[in-house]
Amino acid sequence: MDKLKTYVRSVPDFPKKGINFYDITTLLDNPTGFEEALSEMERYIRGKKADRIVGIEARGFIFGAALADRLKLPFVPARKPGKLPYRTVSASYDLEYGTDSIEIHTDGVKRGDKVVVVDDLIATGGTLAAVCKLVEKLGGEVVGISAVIGLPFLPYDHKLAGYDTQILITYDSE
Amino acid sequence: MDKLKTYVRSVPDFPKKGINFYDITTLLDNPTGFEEALSEMERYIRGKKADRIVGIEARGFIFGAALADRLKLPFVPARKPGKLPYRTVSASYDLEYGTDSIEIHTDGVKRGDKVVVVDDLIATGGTLAAVCKLVEKLGGEVVGISAVIGLPFLPYDHKLAGYDTQILITYDSE
Repeated sequence: MDKLKTYVRSVPDFPKKGINFYDITTLLDNPTGFEEALSEMERYIRGKKADRIVGIEARGFIFGAALADRLKLPFVPARKPGKLPYRTVSASYDLEYGTDSIEIHTDGVKRGDKVVVVDDLIATGGTLAAVCKLVEKLGGEVVGISAVIGLPFLPYDHKLAGYDTQILITYDSE
Repeated sequence: MDKLKTYVRSVPDFPKKGINFYDITTLLDNPTGFEEALSEMERYIRGKKADRIVGIEARGFIFGAALADRLKLPFVPARKPGKLPYRTVSASYDLEYGTDSIEIHTDGVKRGDKVVVVDDLIATGGTLAAVCKLVEKLGGEVVGISAVIGLPFLPYDHKLAGYDTQILITYDSE
């Protein structure tokens, strides 16, 4: 899938000096690139026989919702605190400085559901691991994680140990 | 399209007392409901001969990205300040108390592009009007606005005057 890299823009010093930001807006701007990414993700999710797709705010919505439409599966948004109006479960995760948290609706996942969690990029894996915990708290099974980009130097392997993970492209350094 | 209302959940007193929140997560949870909404929006955008779709963070990403995938059109995210890594244009709009602003990448719209702007819900129309201004600032033409829900009592007509608007369902009061 290294061809996909040609659609991703690398923006130096964002969000701060020394960080290289992998910008997927150029991929989204190219229907061929978006199609290639989605087709690979679709194949993976189909193989996992998922019952529903959880997408992580905000860029995970872009891939997760298009995949839910393709596969005719329910789409469940995982959102930042205070955004979901109904009853929620919440999990917190560590940031470089401090913590943040993420929520899903209590009726977003049913007991026994096979769930694939979708995001655009995996850095430390902290948010994804928190979302997986929420799915499990509601009785669901995380049958897979699918993301476009992985940054293994960060490294996410530890936090996502035990989960099957599809990553389309990786970058080896900042 | 009033059948679509059966998929939308009404949550009282969110985000604050006296406000009725129209929750589309129950629609997203139902592949039939999501399909019905997307098919109507797809037909509208096709009729407008749009060159690209702009989706507004965060719930507008859900509909906009799935539509971009269906129509094989570029998807352009309109985001809250500081989220987009490349060069941006920014517009501010009034909130009940204070102001907020919204950004798109300067290369997100090309001169002469026909653009449809997508969001889940139109309340006062302030964010949407700001995004339309950004599209026009970059030389694009807003050929339409498409949203699932409209709350005409708020009223958005004034701010969106002059734009062609598709709204699938409306609610008459809070």
